[in-house]
Amino acid sequence: MSQMKMVGKQSLEFQDAPWIIQSGNVVGSKEGEGPLGEYFDIIGEDEMFGCENWESAEGELQKEALTLALGKAGVTAKQIRYLFAGDLLGQNMASSFGLEDMDIPMFGLYGACSTAGESLSLAALSVAAGAADLTAAVTSSHFASAEKQFRFPLAYGNQRPPSSTWTVTGSGAFLVGRKKGIAKITGITTGKIVDYGVKDTMNMGGCMAPAAVDTIYANLTDYKRQVDYYDKIITGDLGEIGVEILIDLLKERGYDVKSRILDCGMMMFDKEKQGTNAGGSGCGCSATVLSAFILKQIKEGVWKRVLFVPTGALMSPVSHNEGMSVPGIAHGVCLEGDI
Amino acid sequence: MSQMKMVGKQSLEFQDAPWIIQSGNVVGSKEGEGPLGEYFDIIGEDEMFGCENWESAEGELQKEALTLALGKAGVTAKQIRYLFAGDLLGQNMASSFGLEDMDIPMFGLYGACSTAGESLSLAALSVAAGAADLTAAVTSSHFASAEKQFRFPLAYGNQRPPSSTWTVTGSGAFLVGRKKGIAKITGITTGKIVDYGVKDTMNMGGCMAPAAVDTIYANLTDYKRQVDYYDKIITGDLGEIGVEILIDLLKERGYDVKSRILDCGMMMFDKEKQGTNAGGSGCGCSATVLSAFILKQIKEGVWKRVLFVPTGALMSPVSHNEGMSVPGIAHGVCLEGDI
Repeated sequence: MSQMKMVGKQSLEFQDAPWIIQSGNVVGSKEGEGPLGEYFDIIGEDEMFGCENWESAEGELQKEALTLALGKAGVTAKQIRYLFAGDLLGQNMASSFGLEDMDIPMFGLYGACSTAGESLSLAALSVAAGAADLTAAVTSSHFASAEKQFRFPLAYGNQRPPSSTWTVTGSGAFLVGRKKGIAKITGITTGKIVDYGVKDTMNMGGCMAPAAVDTIYANLTDYKRQVDYYDKIITGDLGEIGVEILIDLLKERGYDVKSRILDCGMMMFDKEKQGTNAGGSGCGCSATVLSAFILKQIKEGVWKRVLFVPTGALMSPVSHNEGMSVPGIAHGVCLEGDI
Repeated sequence: MSQMKMVGKQSLEFQDAPWIIQSGNVVGSKEGEGPLGEYFDIIGEDEMFGCENWESAEGELQKEALTLALGKAGVTAKQIRYLFAGDLLGQNMASSFGLEDMDIPMFGLYGACSTAGESLSLAALSVAAGAADLTAAVTSSHFASAEKQFRFPLAYGNQRPPSSTWTVTGSGAFLVGRKKGIAKITGITTGKIVDYGVKDTMNMGGCMAPAAVDTIYANLTDYKRQVDYYDKIITGDLGEIGVEILIDLLKERGYDVKSRILDCGMMMFDKEKQGTNAGGSGCGCSATVLSAFILKQIKEGVWKRVLFVPTGALMSPVSHNEGMSVPGIAHGVCLEGDI
């Protein structure tokens, strides 16, 4: 007898659903000044987080977020059987250096900004399978390390088109296990790479929207659910333009999500006051919003069922320079409260 | 009832073990001229594999290896429920662009050259858990894309110290599922990041050996096995110097592996004739040697039980330039034949 059931083409249902037991989040000062400022666990004043370079600072964010989650749950790193972690940097530099001292068996992941969904999916799968009683899923991004890698030197002060997003400085860590906690992970819908051939890396929302559409559509059809099954469907970092495209594309496929859709990228910043254009982005965007805000709503019973869909733009500086498209991917995680 | 059992601190035992049903491998011309030349499925004559750049060539390798595996097994991509894939390039460029047309739900992975072990581990876990009946694990590396990213421009013709390795141009793809095939995956030992502070990126064997030691030691103690339980213990790409260190360190911990140890990196090239110094490296090294040679030995009953331990050096060009160490990781996969 299995603890999980394959549903439709690309979804899984967990019979004895694993829980997000606890989580921790750390963000930078700009995120702290945004609309969700009051909800974050730690808001750093120094974007270097006491480190010598941006990449180490991002690693430090991961370490702090996980340490926080462990502390809240009253468990030690030794009790974690698997660590599922990833970030945006080449060769997952933030995860490798940030988490090496944790001394936990580790699966390194790369799903661009969808990594929060990917890591939660594999953590839940492992727990449901009986491969672990307690696991951790950790992701991060840092504005400065991402700009340095993907865009322009910060000192250059380049202009940003309205479709551009602002990489979130932040990390979210989640403890996923058997013990009852904040939210159940009742199922997952694992995304495919979707590539509409868009090449504009300054419009990642446009690049990722088709992937989010594909995953949300697969989730609804696999489970034979209507949109109103979920109180909210929350994408990772599509931003304003990406969400508009998503609503249109899903309407064409018979689903009207307008009244249910939220986007972590759009929730993170106040566009007018903070000059962040289309919204926040980065693995740390959806991870910190989930940890700080979404889980709180679920815990308090404001939302009962949430489909969390982090979205990733699978580009690299090299693929950009070689004139290639920006493929997208999105991983769906079904969250359910106990109230 | 679970289909798997947690064993010791970091191992899993699969009760109804998943199978490597089939595999496919593609290598470059230099690999084809090496000692294992006669075993490879496809040896490319053109290192560009018909593509416009090295990264796309590496992606093409993955596509061809998986297509080969599918063909040998007589299944279609549609029948694969999950794809576990990764490579060495920043943001997993080869996997994303090489496999996007496969249209399979995908978990992107990064474990440097240990990715063949990581992908097989998660594929086996998913199948054993009942999350999938058929999955694929695909990894690759390409000499030129790796040199371009990590080292020097090819045209510069830099000198290589004796401890340096030669990145293998190649990809191996494995179909892991319920149906009886070539070798059972009876268990996995998931590695931790191990960092002895070595900073020499031209001595990756030295950097990775402690991680391989840690994983092999965990495997033997978790399962309470002696070294001779395995016909062979085969590391990924430690090379000559790394293997020497490994033998010494394991002897200090009470295990003499000298008569059982093999290393894919040392098997791949003829050092004297091919000028490859300490051996081959890259995700494609262990993946192609497993697909072409190790699985053949298991299939023919030459080896009954093999502990396959791909090893990864978790460095990036940025971490190198910032003077950071090279942490290692190694993932153990227990393979068993049916003869």
